[in-house]
Amino acid sequence: MCGMVATAGFAASHAGGENKSVEARHHQMQMIAYHTGILGGIAKGEMEYDSAMVDAAASNIASLAAMERATLWIEGTEQGAAADSRAKPEIWSDAEGFAAAFEDLETAASAVVGAGDTAAVGAGMGDIGGACKACHEKYRGPEN
Amino acid sequence: MCGMVATAGFAASHAGGENKSVEARHHQMQMIAYHTGILGGIAKGEMEYDSAMVDAAASNIASLAAMERATLWIEGTEQGAAADSRAKPEIWSDAEGFAAAFEDLETAASAVVGAGDTAAVGAGMGDIGGACKACHEKYRGPEN
Repeated sequence: MCGMVATAGFAASHAGGENKSVEARHHQMQMIAYHTGILGGIAKGEMEYDSAMVDAAASNIASLAAMERATLWIEGTEQGAAADSRAKPEIWSDAEGFAAAFEDLETAASAVVGAGDTAAVGAGMGDIGGACKACHEKYRGPEN
Repeated sequence: MCGMVATAGFAASHAGGENKSVEARHHQMQMIAYHTGILGGIAKGEMEYDSAMVDAAASNIASLAAMERATLWIEGTEQGAAADSRAKPEIWSDAEGFAAAFEDLETAASAVVGAGDTAAVGAGMGDIGGACKACHEKYRGPEN
């Protein structure tokens, strides 16, 4: 109850209104996309294999997946209620499943730290991409 | 030497060109700004004190400050060399100092986890703001 009252102060003030948390989680997603782009580029041979880059990209994806959700996924910011949001209501009604989906990404990304060659990065990218896709299918709505 | 060769594949292809790492670190900075906005809002009494929000915001700032820099601060993406960049060359010529500046932010943010009231958040925000300012003064160039 305390949490509900308090988060109200962070929520969109009216239906369809802007909410900075939506923008913030888009930044989070863009950072994840940037880093998966590096791993994907290496896996496809479009970028040179570089262990420091692989480890940094994988580690950063894991950190981004592990971000605390309280500030980012604020109640009342689902698609339709907050501008630019594609968040499905299931993010809040199935909070455990949503947490598990992010944990799957964190696990997949962490496993790529230390990937010794292009093939290993490619295999790891399969799991990372699978985690992205599974979460988007379950918790992301259609384009606005 | 190996790192220099490899990072060349990630660098801007020509002077003043776009480089995705610049955009990615802007996302990082925007996420830090979003979370310091929450802590600042609480410190100023504009937002209701909420321990879950305080802890999440502080923890996320610490994680963002601790991001691996290899993928984000790529050589050849300083101000003037890459579009939209305000990164000073000192980021690379004084890499240890730059790392220490991010560590100062990480330390200041971590200290706010568990801040028990508005006053404690305000005190912590002083240190976080100080870390932001110190780093910007030393490593960020003028507006483009």
